[in-house]
Amino acid sequence: MSIENDVKALRTGGQHGYLRIATEEAFAPPEMIRMYRRMIRNGEIKDPGFLSLWGFYAFSKSPRAKFIFDSLQDLGEKRLADMDERGIDKQIIALTSPGTQILKRDQAVALAELANDQLAEACRKYPDRFAGMAACAPQDGKAAAKEIERGVSKLGFNSVIINSHTNGHYLDEPQFWPILEAAEALDVPIYIHPNTPPKAMIKPMLDAGLDGAIYGFGVETSLHALRLITRGVLDRFPKLQIIIGHMGEALPFWQYRIDYMHAATVRSKRYDVMLPLQRKPSEYLRENYYMTNSGVAWEPAIKFTQATVGVDRVVYAMDYPYQCDPEEVVALDAMKMSAATKKKFFQTNAEKLFKLKKKK
Amino acid sequence: MSIENDVKALRTGGQHGYLRIATEEAFAPPEMIRMYRRMIRNGEIKDPGFLSLWGFYAFSKSPRAKFIFDSLQDLGEKRLADMDERGIDKQIIALTSPGTQILKRDQAVALAELANDQLAEACRKYPDRFAGMAACAPQDGKAAAKEIERGVSKLGFNSVIINSHTNGHYLDEPQFWPILEAAEALDVPIYIHPNTPPKAMIKPMLDAGLDGAIYGFGVETSLHALRLITRGVLDRFPKLQIIIGHMGEALPFWQYRIDYMHAATVRSKRYDVMLPLQRKPSEYLRENYYMTNSGVAWEPAIKFTQATVGVDRVVYAMDYPYQCDPEEVVALDAMKMSAATKKKFFQTNAEKLFKLKKKK
Repeated sequence: MSIENDVKALRTGGQHGYLRIATEEAFAPPEMIRMYRRMIRNGEIKDPGFLSLWGFYAFSKSPRAKFIFDSLQDLGEKRLADMDERGIDKQIIALTSPGTQILKRDQAVALAELANDQLAEACRKYPDRFAGMAACAPQDGKAAAKEIERGVSKLGFNSVIINSHTNGHYLDEPQFWPILEAAEALDVPIYIHPNTPPKAMIKPMLDAGLDGAIYGFGVETSLHALRLITRGVLDRFPKLQIIIGHMGEALPFWQYRIDYMHAATVRSKRYDVMLPLQRKPSEYLRENYYMTNSGVAWEPAIKFTQATVGVDRVVYAMDYPYQCDPEEVVALDAMKMSAATKKKFFQTNAEKLFKLKKKK
Repeated sequence: MSIENDVKALRTGGQHGYLRIATEEAFAPPEMIRMYRRMIRNGEIKDPGFLSLWGFYAFSKSPRAKFIFDSLQDLGEKRLADMDERGIDKQIIALTSPGTQILKRDQAVALAELANDQLAEACRKYPDRFAGMAACAPQDGKAAAKEIERGVSKLGFNSVIINSHTNGHYLDEPQFWPILEAAEALDVPIYIHPNTPPKAMIKPMLDAGLDGAIYGFGVETSLHALRLITRGVLDRFPKLQIIIGHMGEALPFWQYRIDYMHAATVRSKRYDVMLPLQRKPSEYLRENYYMTNSGVAWEPAIKFTQATVGVDRVVYAMDYPYQCDPEEVVALDAMKMSAATKKKFFQTNAEKLFKLKKKK
């Protein structure tokens, strides 16, 4: 059978043995897009990564940018049709990067509320097809914790989206601990989605056009995830669960080296900021992290992560609308993997992680 | 049998079916160490990565730093004894990072010559145990090409060491092309060894003590290797062979995403600096790159790279004296892998890559 026929045969409904639940899917309130466009035009935001990313998505006339621009803003029929065409039963939807995190405090707090209200409404309208992550404004840790609480208890979200750094700051810093505390107390995972690297890091990548999803995203997000481990934050919040995409942003592949060098560095007391941990870094990866394959529809990397991190922690994601070729769904359907493991990957790991069964 | 007994049983000589040729092994002329210490003390060098790395190795009293400090400066009996103890038949030795690349032009040119002369002398003295890489001063591309020519034709080296960026500049920039041209013309590979990230990139890593081998090294070097691909340099020098360590600095794991995003980005014309290439990025990885497992004595990552890049391109390295536990040799000896593939890994890939058979 040709790939064209395989693509045509994609169906929702689970007749092939599992539902496909895509867990790193993006949306943007039209109000946010308008604000981004205005702020880029009037020079209000100077962050080079933001200008590179949204200068492209908000203004490029390329088919890629236009598809993304349109699709991000839809939480209705267009999105459902795209899901049907790709065989996606359910999307876990989050405010796209950088969301609130490029804005001033008051704007950010207001945008988080607006985004959460819009997303919650769509989830109420299509409860079988959509679930959502709570957005917040990390610029104000206490307000963010409050909005997460509202998102979970009032709006029915079961996870939190953080679009990596906030103006060059990372979740291991104490001003963000109310967010971690709230997520742990409410028993909801935090998805750390990529952002372009901050100004203090981006230049050698931006100079070569490597600041975005091709490379800079992965560097930025793996650094963030690693800082949460090595700065001891997961010893302070040991039940906290973090989700990272793009097949764990390559951290599964780095496990051995990170463990070795962490132990050697701690023993030598090289840094005041690197103290002993309760576990090996790789143990946090296996016990506090879930990893989705967004952007990585590639059997070898998925299986490597299943083998070294755990089959219960590797979760399907599509990355709609940034990367959503139906051919990738066909390729993943065809992975040589036991039916039980494939069902965990596509369906049941996500159902447990996002508590999908308890709702509705 | 216990691991202690396995370690005691480590032997050179190949009775177990292969010689162990370690290919990312470091040395430092005592003159360079003295210069580094002086320049750190008198504040002459301000690069934060250098101060973090060599502030530690040149001054720390920790057992780790002292072992490295002493071992780097030895090209004789101590090194041979350490090799014997670890079952290493041969080291391919290179000027340690950042070598010349932190210095002013004239200092750098002089240090490259001095380092090459010292290393060549040791290789002449112990031709069965040592081979060397030619150092150079990338600050002056033409002088560097000349020194590489001298290293290969007069001193018997069959490869070139570049310790990643030179003051924040990368080999894809035209001022360095004489180096690439010389290496291609002389048919010798260039080993891109990590350096700490440049000032324009290091801050969020340094703040958390993640600027070195635990994380920053890999980011810095994979960026460098990726720039050589995406900037089109390997279309200009298509026969050039590059070696990267630390199991390919995770680029094998990123292959799928890099290919996908490169194609999407080129199609959308997002960057003037990202133009179409003659091949997919992953094809350059399989055709222009060799990858050593320095610092990664871990069967899953080695096998992943063998499977996705090629068994002829994955080469053993120890990373002496930075990481040289005999237990790691035992673990690698025990990998479940065909005898033929294991011999390629430990011995014959390196013999071909570094033309070891033709010498002596």
